[in-house]
Formats: sequence, C-alpha cells, structure tokens
Amino acid sequence: MKIDLNSDLGESFGAYKIGNDENIIPLISSANIACGYHAGDPLVMDKTLSLCKDNGVSVGVHPGFPDLMGFGRRQLNASPKEVEAYILYQVGAISGFCKKYGLKINHVKPHGALYNMAVKDEKYAAAIVTAVKEFDSSIKLLAPFGSQMVMQAEKQGLPYACEVFADRAYEPDGSLVARTKEGAMITDEDEAVSRVLGMILKGEVTAIDGSVIKIKADSVCVHGDGEKALAFVQKLRTAFAENNITITHF
Amino acid sequence: MKIDLNSDLGESFGAYKIGNDENIIPLISSANIACGYHAGDPLVMDKTLSLCKDNGVSVGVHPGFPDLMGFGRRQLNASPKEVEAYILYQVGAISGFCKKYGLKINHVKPHGALYNMAVKDEKYAAAIVTAVKEFDSSIKLLAPFGSQMVMQAEKQGLPYACEVFADRAYEPDGSLVARTKEGAMITDEDEAVSRVLGMILKGEVTAIDGSVIKIKADSVCVHGDGEKALAFVQKLRTAFAENNITITHF
Amino acid sequence: MKIDLNSDLGESFGAYKIGNDENIIPLISSANIACGYHAGDPLVMDKTLSLCKDNGVSVGVHPGFPDLMGFGRRQLNASPKEVEAYILYQVGAISGFCKKYGLKINHVKPHGALYNMAVKDEKYAAAIVTAVKEFDSSIKLLAPFGSQMVMQAEKQGLPYACEVFADRAYEPDGSLVARTKEGAMITDEDEAVSRVLGMILKGEVTAIDGSVIKIKADSVCVHGDGEKALAFVQKLRTAFAENNITITHF
Amino acid sequence: MKIDLNSDLGESFGAYKIGNDENIIPLISSANIACGYHAGDPLVMDKTLSLCKDNGVSVGVHPGFPDLMGFGRRQLNASPKEVEAYILYQVGAISGFCKKYGLKINHVKPHGALYNMAVKDEKYAAAIVTAVKEFDSSIKLLAPFGSQMVMQAEKQGLPYACEVFADRAYEPDGSLVARTKEGAMITDEDEAVSRVLGMILKGEVTAIDGSVIKIKADSVCVHGDGEKALAFVQKLRTAFAENNITITHF
Repeated sequence: MKIDLNSDLGESFGAYKIGNDENIIPLISSANIACGYHAGDPLVMDKTLSLCKDNGVSVGVHPGFPDLMGFGRRQLNASPKEVEAYILYQVGAISGFCKKYGLKINHVKPHGALYNMAVKDEKYAAAIVTAVKEFDSSIKLLAPFGSQMVMQAEKQGLPYACEVFADRAYEPDGSLVARTKEGAMITDEDEAVSRVLGMILKGEVTAIDGSVIKIKADSVCVHGDGEKALAFVQKLRTAFAENNITITHF
Repeated sequence: MKIDLNSDLGESFGAYKIGNDENIIPLISSANIACGYHAGDPLVMDKTLSLCKDNGVSVGVHPGFPDLMGFGRRQLNASPKEVEAYILYQVGAISGFCKKYGLKINHVKPHGALYNMAVKDEKYAAAIVTAVKEFDSSIKLLAPFGSQMVMQAEKQGLPYACEVFADRAYEPDGSLVARTKEGAMITDEDEAVSRVLGMILKGEVTAIDGSVIKIKADSVCVHGDGEKALAFVQKLRTAFAENNITITHF
Repeated sequence: MKIDLNSDLGESFGAYKIGNDENIIPLISSANIACGYHAGDPLVMDKTLSLCKDNGVSVGVHPGFPDLMGFGRRQLNASPKEVEAYILYQVGAISGFCKKYGLKINHVKPHGALYNMAVKDEKYAAAIVTAVKEFDSSIKLLAPFGSQMVMQAEKQGLPYACEVFADRAYEPDGSLVARTKEGAMITDEDEAVSRVLGMILKGEVTAIDGSVIKIKADSVCVHGDGEKALAFVQKLRTAFAENNITITHF
Repeated sequence: MKIDLNSDLGESFGAYKIGNDENIIPLISSANIACGYHAGDPLVMDKTLSLCKDNGVSVGVHPGFPDLMGFGRRQLNASPKEVEAYILYQVGAISGFCKKYGLKINHVKPHGALYNMAVKDEKYAAAIVTAVKEFDSSIKLLAPFGSQMVMQAEKQGLPYACEVFADRAYEPDGSLVARTKEGAMITDEDEAVSRVLGMILKGEVTAIDGSVIKIKADSVCVHGDGEKALAFVQKLRTAFAENNITITHF
C-alpha cells in the first residue's frame, strides 16, 4: 500500500515569509510550488527547488491567479483561454528552475480559487488539462476524486492522481463541505487520522450526512505552518507506518 | 554571406498594445519575446509564439527587470543572484509556450536596462550566462561584440551571436554612443544601410571619432513600430539581396 | 436645460498608451480618471489632472479592481471590506494630484467589472458609497438610474448623478442590454443622438422590447478613442446646441 | 525636553505578515505607514490608521519605490519627475484613510532605497520636498540631520524634523556607516541608550573614528519586530523617563 503526502510550498515573496518549508519538506513526498502569480518569486522558487532536490521530494507546480494581493484565493472571472495561458506560463517558469537542479515536474495542482473553480467548472478544468498536456503529456494532474478536473483528465488522456484532505468534511456527492458550514473542519486529530486510513485502505469515507461514500486517495494534502500542523503530519506518518502504508510520490 | 534580423516583439500587455508584430515578423529571422516582467503577458506570449511558428521565425527570449511601470528601462539594483533567477524564470515561462507550438528557444537577449547593465557589468553578465547555461547550454546569447556578456559567454562556454545596430553610432571602443550625446543616432537611412553592409561584409564600422573599428555582425536589431521603421527594414532587405547576403537566423 | 459629458481618461500606463486624452478633453465637462489599479500610473495621473485644469474639466475618480492585466474588466470576488478600502486608496491617490493643481474631486465613478457588479450588488454598492462618504460626503457618485449604487447613495445620503449611454440599448427594467445579446449596441449615430435627446428632454427612452421607460440623464458617457468616436461627440455637442442644452458638469 | 519615537508600520501585504504593529504602536509617538508600493495594501493601511487613532499615535507617510518584490530596498533609477509623482500618489493614498478616521498626516519619511538615495541626491531630495509641499506645506519631512532632504526642506521652506538611529554608527560627516563596514551596528544596548541620550541632551554623538560630532535628534527610529526589539524600546522609554525626556510626536 502506498500514499503520497503533498504540501503547498514556496509561498514566500521577497521580504515576506509564509510557511515552514525547511521543516515540512523532510516529512512529505510531493511539493506543490508557487510560481510567482499568487505567491512565490524567482529567488524563492530557486530555493524551494533546491530543497526538493536535497530531500528527494517530487516536484509539483502550483499555479494560481495573478492576484498576489488576494493570495490567489479570490475568484477571478478569467476566460478559459487566459487560464490555459496562465498555466503554461507558470509551469514553464517552474521548469526553468527544474533544469538548473536536474529535476522533472511530476504533477500540477492548481491553487486556491483556481482549484475551487476548476473542481466544478468544465471549461476551466478542460483549459487546465489542455495546458498541462501541451507542456508535457506525462505530467500528472493532482485533483480531487469526482471533480471536473479528473473528468477532463480522463477525457483528454492526461494521467492524474486523486487528492484527499485529512481535516475537511465531505458532502454526500464527494465534494468538500464549504468552510462556512458547521462541521466543515475535522478538528479531532485522531478522527482525522482514522478517516485518512479509511480513505486509503478501504477507498471510502463517511460524509457529513452519515452516509459512506466512495473516494480515491492517492495523495493526502498536509499543512506545514505551525508546530501543531507538523505534529499532525508526524502522527499521520506514524499511523501509515503502523499500517504498512509506504509514503512515496505518485 | 548570412545575416540575422532580430526585433523586440510581444511587448503588448492586457488591453495595452505596443508594436506592430504582425507586420514586422514576416520581415525578420529572429524574435526577442517579452516574458511578462517588463512587458508581455501569457496571452500575448501565446500569440507571439504562434506568429513565430506561422512565419518560421526563430524564437528568442527577451527577459527584463520586473518593472512594468518603467518598461524595464530603469536600472534596478538587483543582486546577481536575483538576475540569475529572473532569467531562469522568464526563459522557463517562454519555454512553456514553445512546448505548445513545438518550437525551440534559439537565443536569449536581455532587455533594456538589464541589457545595458550586463554590457558593462561582469557580475550581471556572468549571472545571465550562468542562467542560460543552467536552462540549456545550447541556447545562444545575443549581445554586442566586445561586451561583458560576450566575454562571459566565452568564459563559460556558452554559444553566442553578436548584435549590431543600424541606427546607432559607435564609440572607438566599440560601445554605443550614449543617446544623450550629439551624433548618437544615425538618421540618414542610406548611411545606415551602408554602415550595416560594412559591418557584415568587412567586419568594421566608422566610430564617432572617425576611426575605423572592428566589429562582429551576426544579427542586426530592427524596429517594427511605424511605417517608417518597416520601410527601413525593407530597404535593408533589398540591400542584402543586392549583396548576396542571405537573411537567416544564427 | 443642462447635461454633462463624461469620459474615461488617464488610462495609459508607463510606455503604454491608451486613449486620446488631449483631443477628447476639450469636448467634455467631466473626466473619470484611472488611479493606478486597473490602469494609469502616477505620471499619467499628473498629466491628466494638468489637462483637466487647463481645460476647465471637472475631476472624477475612476477606481477599479487591482487587475492591470485584465484592465479591471474581470469580476474579482473581493469582499465589500476590500472594495471599501480600494475606493479609499484610489480616491486618496487622485486627491494627491488634485492638491498639486488646486483642483477638487467632483465625483467618483467605478470602472469596468467593479461598476457592473456594483450596479446589481447591494453590498458592493453600499461599500462604495460608504468609502466616498468617508473621504468627503460632498463628492457625488456617478451611476446609472435605478442601480444599487443610486439606491445606496440615497440611503446613505450621498449626492449622486445619473449616467446614460448613447450607444447602448436598455432592458425594460432600465438596465443595459448585455453586450452578448443582439441589439445591445446602438450603431446608428442619428438614432443614438435622438435617443440621448429624448433621455435628457423627456426623461425617457425606448427599451429593447419597444416599451418606453423612465430614465434620468445627468451625464452622457462618451468615448474618445478614434476619429469616429470624436466625430460622434461633436455630433452630440451640435445636437445639444440646437436644443439649447448646455454642456456643464453636474 | 521632548523626543519622538518613530517606527515603520503597516508593512504587511495580503496574506503576508511583517512586523508587530499591535505591540509596538503603544510604545511610540509616530508611525511611518507603508502605502502599497514597496509594502502595505489598502486593508492593511485601513487597519494601521485605525491602530494609530486608537493609540493616539501621529500619522506619517512612508512612501517607497514601486518594488514589492524587493521591499523597496533596491535602488531604482527613476527620474525626479517620477519620484515626485510617486510621493504625491502615496501621500494621497494614505490621506484617503486619514479622512475615514479623522486623522491628519503629520510627516513624510521616504522608505528604503528611496530614503538612502534622497539623503545624498539633491534632485531626489528636491523632488520629494516639492511633492510634500504640493500636497500640504504644513506636513513635515522626517530625515537625517545634514542630509540633502533637510537641505532641500530648508531651501523650499518645508518644515522638517531630524531622525537619529540608536543602533547605527555615524561617520565623521554625520552620515550613517554603511552596513557592510565593521562597526556599523551598535549591538550593545546600554551603549545604544547612552548614545541616544547624548544625541538628545547634548546634540552630539561619537563618530566611528572617535571624533565627537554635532547632531540633531527630534525623533528616534525604533523597530518592533521581535521580543528583543520591543524590550529595547522599553529600555529607551525608561531611560527617557529617568532623564525627564517626554515622548511626544514632533
């Protein structure tokens, strides 16, 4: 049994620091690296790729909207053509640093509002898949099971992997419960670990209405900011070891 | 005898249009394409690469300082490390669109203040050459004969080509006469054509003090904005044809 | 009888030129000036305010979303708190140049997607009105009759003026026909002039379904880009003169 | 005897946090507030002005170069005309939030590279003074004794106050010792306090060569990031109290 642990990295910008890259990188198998649009700058990207190389972590591109002020978290009514071009631009930019370090891009995972829109919007999802294919058709898309992104990847023949969240509740249709709803966050750490194990080992999870739904878990998204987040990743790693689940990139 | 004609392209941004790309591209052999830092955006880059493909024009990267407000024309006291990372970022970004169109980057030519600084500053020149090599050591640097960029390319073993200007006067040391000095611009078109022919055929040009200096001309930089500029490029092309000089990328 | 002619100005940015400010300014009574977010930069703002002073044109602020790449035309899911702060920032920035030239801000008219969202969204409209009041409660809001902006201005006691469009068709509810619908644009110039006269003199206009609806016309929005646009403004001015309608700011 | 304590504030941007504004504001008398060019955004500016109001801290504008990626710390070869316009823009932008909170701008202190350039460059200093005068000739410039900024303020009749640094060594000519030189930083806290007391009470300080030079201290610049910095400000405040020096804005 295998699982990937992914985390959003390289989100610092100039004098501004976000995240705890040095401490989370040794604990994960895949990095989603910001590309200078919603976060990240060329020096930060260089350093993040260098950390990935040193720690044998798989490189992923984490493209977002050109909205640094909003950290890419605000929906922007860009056209699918614009989205396709934004993806090509950002994937290309990361590839510049990959060449320096002799690394290869393994996956692309959109960020923030672009991710959320592409989960549900067929045109956005198709534009993202098209851009990744245009760049390199062996790069995988990282997206949630049942999303438009996964459907478009299947349609266009792009490899993909499915991402799950340890700290989020699911709707009966497999989508995430909106953060504004009660019960959206799984705050009990033991429950979170147990849910993740169920998703990996049985391919199912209990939705917010109590029904048990099917899910595909190739990768678990974890956070590295703060002592508590790091401790939780350690807890996950221990649980994986106890269940003979190997942490490795997809 | 062969010569390359290069021009700065893809400098539009969003709703803002600069240049006359559709009309100049059929007349040149190499494009220097802006990458979103001092000019250009992903949609513009996409369109420019598409024009290059349609017209068989060789693709060059035209990286600049992150200063859209100043169009990359203002010196910015960035560190050589930053310059290296800015080049990797921008070369990578262009490569994203090259992959879409099945094109290859042939050269890199820095833009504006970055170009001017790297002509004289050894550390900047070295950082630029290093970045290009890190990305792909077969990509050529396009820079003026005698510049620090050429010296660093030779030192680091990066292929390069030498660029000359039809409309600019030269100092006895081979550098361009500053625009603020009298006589800096060659305004007589016939004189400009004749000077370019001398640079290509004899490898020499008359400097502003009347002395004849050695120069290397692999590529002539031309402008495409305005009827007059296009007419001048046509004049150059006619003179090349009459002298059995073939226009082709280096 | 009086009418105001307003136009969007100061939209150039750095080396990028948009519009025809020198030629349109002598023909209008109110300028809506970009503030550096979706368009405009400090040098452009300085020059635009100087042109307003020289031509006795009334100063308006034209704040937009922080989206230069999209020229402020793309909906951005900013919070009302953010919108309020963006308005204060941009109105303040224009006021800096007003102080230099001894001018006063007469009105605020949101730009592009922000304008369109605030026409229908009560929270956005309220945030804009609040910001203008916080800056100076004697500044007028310029917005279409029947819009949420006008309703919120009335509610909060901010003075306002109503803007009409010569080249756009209206829905029976007084809103603009979406540009994607057939018949959205009034392309016949004589018809456009005649519609504007009807809006000013009778306070009514024929909607796209043929019904005659009430409308309030304090200001007509005109464009200055291109010979044809300027000629149309001249035509409007002639028609106003023939009907004893004085062009003056509200 | 009176002294002002000033600190750079409002430097966060979007999701990015810098500084410790809530904790330093109660300890100082003047805030230098970033304006969205090198740091700060409209929401951050709003919150910072609100904190100033709540704590009775005097409002200063801290304008910088439009270089968020470099935090305004890199020299940018802008023209004096551009600098004048950048100051008007940023002072105006802060004034927008001042109007909301019923506050008045008391001073302007340039940031980073712009500050360092204007200390020595007559044209930059003149452009800054001109812009502040154009906005409001009662606003004071905050700048170091002996700088071009102070000289230009005197020449143009703009009020000013002189800023000293507790943690920096001085050259015999009154300028700061470059950070790259040994001995540039005063690391002993007691020595730093004693030097500040000497500057305030006797108007003199010992330069790095041992000579005693004249200096004018209207305001001491302090930092708020980190426990140690806050503890040092407390130490300064205690020393002032013991010497009957009242902390109040200039």
